[in-house]
Amino acid sequence: MMETDKNAPVGVFDSGVGGLTVVREIMRQIPEERIVYFGDTARVPYGSKSADTVIRYSRQIIRFLQTKKVKAIVIACNTASACALDVVAEETDIPVIGVINAGARTAVGATRNGRIGVIGTEATIGSGIYTRVMQRLRPDIQVAGKPCPLFVPLVEEGLLHDSVTDEIASRYLSSLKEKYIDTLVLGCTHYPLLRSTLRRLMGEDVVLVNPAYETAIELKGLLQERGLGRDPEAPLEGEQYQFYVSDLAEKFTSFATSILPGAVKETRKIDIENY
Amino acid sequence: MMETDKNAPVGVFDSGVGGLTVVREIMRQIPEERIVYFGDTARVPYGSKSADTVIRYSRQIIRFLQTKKVKAIVIACNTASACALDVVAEETDIPVIGVINAGARTAVGATRNGRIGVIGTEATIGSGIYTRVMQRLRPDIQVAGKPCPLFVPLVEEGLLHDSVTDEIASRYLSSLKEKYIDTLVLGCTHYPLLRSTLRRLMGEDVVLVNPAYETAIELKGLLQERGLGRDPEAPLEGEQYQFYVSDLAEKFTSFATSILPGAVKETRKIDIENY
Repeated sequence: MMETDKNAPVGVFDSGVGGLTVVREIMRQIPEERIVYFGDTARVPYGSKSADTVIRYSRQIIRFLQTKKVKAIVIACNTASACALDVVAEETDIPVIGVINAGARTAVGATRNGRIGVIGTEATIGSGIYTRVMQRLRPDIQVAGKPCPLFVPLVEEGLLHDSVTDEIASRYLSSLKEKYIDTLVLGCTHYPLLRSTLRRLMGEDVVLVNPAYETAIELKGLLQERGLGRDPEAPLEGEQYQFYVSDLAEKFTSFATSILPGAVKETRKIDIENY
Repeated sequence: MMETDKNAPVGVFDSGVGGLTVVREIMRQIPEERIVYFGDTARVPYGSKSADTVIRYSRQIIRFLQTKKVKAIVIACNTASACALDVVAEETDIPVIGVINAGARTAVGATRNGRIGVIGTEATIGSGIYTRVMQRLRPDIQVAGKPCPLFVPLVEEGLLHDSVTDEIASRYLSSLKEKYIDTLVLGCTHYPLLRSTLRRLMGEDVVLVNPAYETAIELKGLLQERGLGRDPEAPLEGEQYQFYVSDLAEKFTSFATSILPGAVKETRKIDIENY
């Protein structure tokens, strides 16, 4: 096997813009790394699609990222992590990690009463994966999942602080509150943008877990362990950060700039169906 | 040129399930016709995508429908009609019609004060096509367009009669009410499902135009004019109605059965990216 180039970039992908919250954490934790990001803005959302379709799309994206010679891949999307990680990690010859293991581990470490809530898309909650991973770590954990399908469109419409979002969130969270959870996993990369609404509705005593932070830590450990960390002194060949999407590159650049000021010089559109 | 088979089916497509409201009108107006329907449920919604992407998707679907030997095609999606009809009609050797001309014509015929409102997706309203078509018919018409991006997710969540939908609709419609429109085009195939909410908010004096009805009439006229109408006495070779989707066939069958009781025996899933 050819030796992997330590100076190669890390590939990160998501169904759209949500994965940029994971990119932000990677930039903070391991600022020396190069990143190639792909957002599948033509086919977003993934959360209402079948597992088969999400696996097919993830394979195309991994083939694309491999043309960029990435040394590792982060699936920065809960739905794709839930539906596709096990399958694609097996068939890919570089390390692939998702966001769910890190989020589940953090939640299990944080709970005091053993009752954890998980909110996410229909595909993520329907897969039951958070429950399986958390109960593998600690079998007596009780997990209550709740799909919140309107959160993504509400966030994308910018209604982050709005009476309609409050009303919808209050309906979604009521069944979790009734179960006295003390920890809530934000199991979709869009949801951290609703943190203040969720915080107010759940109260100060419930820990809100954002898997993006722990995923960046996991990536850092993985790269160190395998001797794949980039030498901070090595010259940067080309751009440090590259952004690709399947549609609407300009809209992506403007959204990305609000999350990652200064990092997004240009977004390139590619035809992902050709990979 | 080979003579077209009058007994061939009509192809109808949409980004998902919304186009079934057009199918329902075709079944009522020309019950002898055969129909092949395709719903792009893997890549729904179209309304937030670029025109380029919608054109590429429409071409793939037309290639698929032509493998079913259709004699004419109805684009039963406002976004695809707005972005792709002119391009694909030119390059296809059978007649292709959309829903916008019929809807625009009906609205121009219905208005008394010359002020028409149009609601639709961001792509449909952003294209300005309703305004262009209506002003070609009657240059002094004033058209006010309003994108309503949350209506599709609200309908798909089943919140047809809900205080949240009322609140969102009331925000979207307020700018149209201020312009004293007397006619409102429901420029997205999902919106007729919100008819009672829209009716209540706009009042009894505003005419609500659903382009599906007029599109079926236009198809009927086109088939007659070109000698393409199916002979009601001819034996049906195979099924009268066929339904295809790009994802989640069972979910589609159950939704379709609620709109077209008895018509949907089976829905087949195909890989549309291969066309």
